[in-house]
Amino acid sequence: MTVAEKFSNLGIDNAPGQESLQKSTVLEFRGEKIPGAAVDFSHGDVDAHEPIPGSFEVFAKGVEEGGSQAYTPYRGKKSILEHVAAHLSAFTGLQINPDENLILTPGTQGALFLAAGSNILPGDKVAIVEPDYFANRKMVEFFHGVLVPIPMQYENRIGSAGIDLEILEKAFIDGVKLFIFSNPNNPVGCIYSYEEICGIASLAKKYDVTLIVDELYSRQIYPGMTYTHLCAQKEIPDNLVTIMGPSKTESLSGYRLGAAFGNAEIIERMEKLQAIMSLRCSGYNQAVFTTWFNEPEGWMTARTAKHKEIHDAIMEKLAGVPGVYARPAEGGSYLFIRIPELDISLHHFIRIVREMADVTVTPGTEFDPKCIWQFRINFSQDKDKAVAGIERLLQIMERYRKHG
Amino acid sequence: MTVAEKFSNLGIDNAPGQESLQKSTVLEFRGEKIPGAAVDFSHGDVDAHEPIPGSFEVFAKGVEEGGSQAYTPYRGKKSILEHVAAHLSAFTGLQINPDENLILTPGTQGALFLAAGSNILPGDKVAIVEPDYFANRKMVEFFHGVLVPIPMQYENRIGSAGIDLEILEKAFIDGVKLFIFSNPNNPVGCIYSYEEICGIASLAKKYDVTLIVDELYSRQIYPGMTYTHLCAQKEIPDNLVTIMGPSKTESLSGYRLGAAFGNAEIIERMEKLQAIMSLRCSGYNQAVFTTWFNEPEGWMTARTAKHKEIHDAIMEKLAGVPGVYARPAEGGSYLFIRIPELDISLHHFIRIVREMADVTVTPGTEFDPKCIWQFRINFSQDKDKAVAGIERLLQIMERYRKHG
Repeated sequence: MTVAEKFSNLGIDNAPGQESLQKSTVLEFRGEKIPGAAVDFSHGDVDAHEPIPGSFEVFAKGVEEGGSQAYTPYRGKKSILEHVAAHLSAFTGLQINPDENLILTPGTQGALFLAAGSNILPGDKVAIVEPDYFANRKMVEFFHGVLVPIPMQYENRIGSAGIDLEILEKAFIDGVKLFIFSNPNNPVGCIYSYEEICGIASLAKKYDVTLIVDELYSRQIYPGMTYTHLCAQKEIPDNLVTIMGPSKTESLSGYRLGAAFGNAEIIERMEKLQAIMSLRCSGYNQAVFTTWFNEPEGWMTARTAKHKEIHDAIMEKLAGVPGVYARPAEGGSYLFIRIPELDISLHHFIRIVREMADVTVTPGTEFDPKCIWQFRINFSQDKDKAVAGIERLLQIMERYRKHG
Repeated sequence: MTVAEKFSNLGIDNAPGQESLQKSTVLEFRGEKIPGAAVDFSHGDVDAHEPIPGSFEVFAKGVEEGGSQAYTPYRGKKSILEHVAAHLSAFTGLQINPDENLILTPGTQGALFLAAGSNILPGDKVAIVEPDYFANRKMVEFFHGVLVPIPMQYENRIGSAGIDLEILEKAFIDGVKLFIFSNPNNPVGCIYSYEEICGIASLAKKYDVTLIVDELYSRQIYPGMTYTHLCAQKEIPDNLVTIMGPSKTESLSGYRLGAAFGNAEIIERMEKLQAIMSLRCSGYNQAVFTTWFNEPEGWMTARTAKHKEIHDAIMEKLAGVPGVYARPAEGGSYLFIRIPELDISLHHFIRIVREMADVTVTPGTEFDPKCIWQFRINFSQDKDKAVAGIERLLQIMERYRKHG
């Protein structure tokens, strides 16, 4: 294998946010463009949902503080680690020692990469859920691991994500070293049940499998749903690391802040990798962590409620359209929308929607190669624009629906 | 090999900036502590030498701009890529296409990691200079490459770095795929001659070796010295990437900004890797690039002159101390200081100096395992404090000098 061959598997043309760089393809346009305000569902709109109040001010203070904020130890500044550890402990129910069990990273992506890179050796079997966050698959490939997909039958299910624990156990018996999954699931927005979480934890413990649990969206849980933090359960494996960060619900993605907490040896390896990857989470930016879990009273509740409203408005538009399905989101800002078979491929359809309706979505194949008629939307948008965007997308879709 | 074994080679206890986390060891103290203002020579002092004027203001504007600045394509925002490409083209003499040949990264460390990670496959032979930047060695180990050290006889030499081009050619003949080096050299502060640069370039071209040239300090060249940009020479290999960034001379390290430019295929692979590593250089922080190469008139000249003064004052303190040697720096803010043999190990001496004189330096073994009586200082400090710190260090040193 050459590096060129290796990287040809790591395509990013269809990755969220990269659409403006796509090379032009011949597309079969039918009918006229449908005018309307552009909607980029590939990521949240931090103008429609602004960062935590005071974020910029604490950043400014960090800059004023100068050298001691610019150059922190690789895992982060002591006082900020203490703030984050205290709040994550209270939030999850796990006791996190800021000196040993926590590292601050350049975004949650950075935390995931460090966790994967400090647990995968070439040839290691790594289990991932299908569908799940697209980078999981790519990280395993980059580190020369061997992918073991675990199916999740999420459609038309309530109260559980739908992971197949029998297949998971079989994979663990077959030598899987590491299992990575997101909860709430990205792209589906479903939550793992208490039974599923305890099942995963005890299987990992039984077969000595390392777990990386991506809880990025775990603060944005919709009313009536129960969220289970794997890390706080009784029977958990030793080798466990949990990932969180204020980049999504809190709209702080422009600062690139992430955190990983768990097993001290894994955190130490992650710090060593961070030392050669980017040294540290940007020094001044680290100051912004002090606003996290420190939002004005009611701010998070209001934000979650607002997202539920947008979610419901979009679900209403999808309801009753033949062949269209999305599982209602239980947490987070994603919907994974299945459409009927079309005359053209999903990827062409997505490009056509972008050209004709100024609406950007992410193809399902990024999350599961079998999801050839699904796409993901991040509905953290201006509500009216989002609903109008979905309407335009559905109109375009009808022009390409396969008949007979 | 287990991941624990793999990471045991990637020690960071002695890495610059990590000293505060060192576990306590029994140290043999001789005499009293020597009081004085703390000096941390492990990195530059951005309070003594402040960031480019206006950096914070352009950051603030980036935050105000909101979503379009927070979420850029992975390789960077178009307008900022254009700014950086234009200035790097003018600076180096290489024509850089902002759409194809440039990527913005989380610090220069991020650029190096991406360049290494997108060029090394397990088992690949990678040549590095000894001594050179410590992360080069660790990155090669992390990516399961095979290290091929190239000696550099830098002592008592003027007008060339002292790399052994015969050994380099032999290494290339023996199958080296990639050669990484820094110019000016970190930790020595010497500059490669025109002949050395052309020699490296033509050998790489002849044997089809990929080059990663770390030019982090290439804007801070002392009067009378000639600096040669490898990328702008006539006979260069196709696979070449050059690294720069405003984190050192420009004191912008708190923002974590780096850039890599060169071969379009390598840049594309680096972008793919960045997509799973940290997505992008922090969005708001990218705005700060607009101050780079855009400093007030005379600012860079004054900054360089000020560093030359500090350099000269320290060299004066070292002059005439038996057994002590440092090659005068030709560029950058580092001195690599050789001391005489002591009664204790270098690592113990360095910890003792930190305890007794509040002076932090970085052991030579980080840069070359054979450098057991050298340490590196970053003299981008307050001049008086730096000189006083070196005086204290030399006083402590005499207490441990080996006699007879």
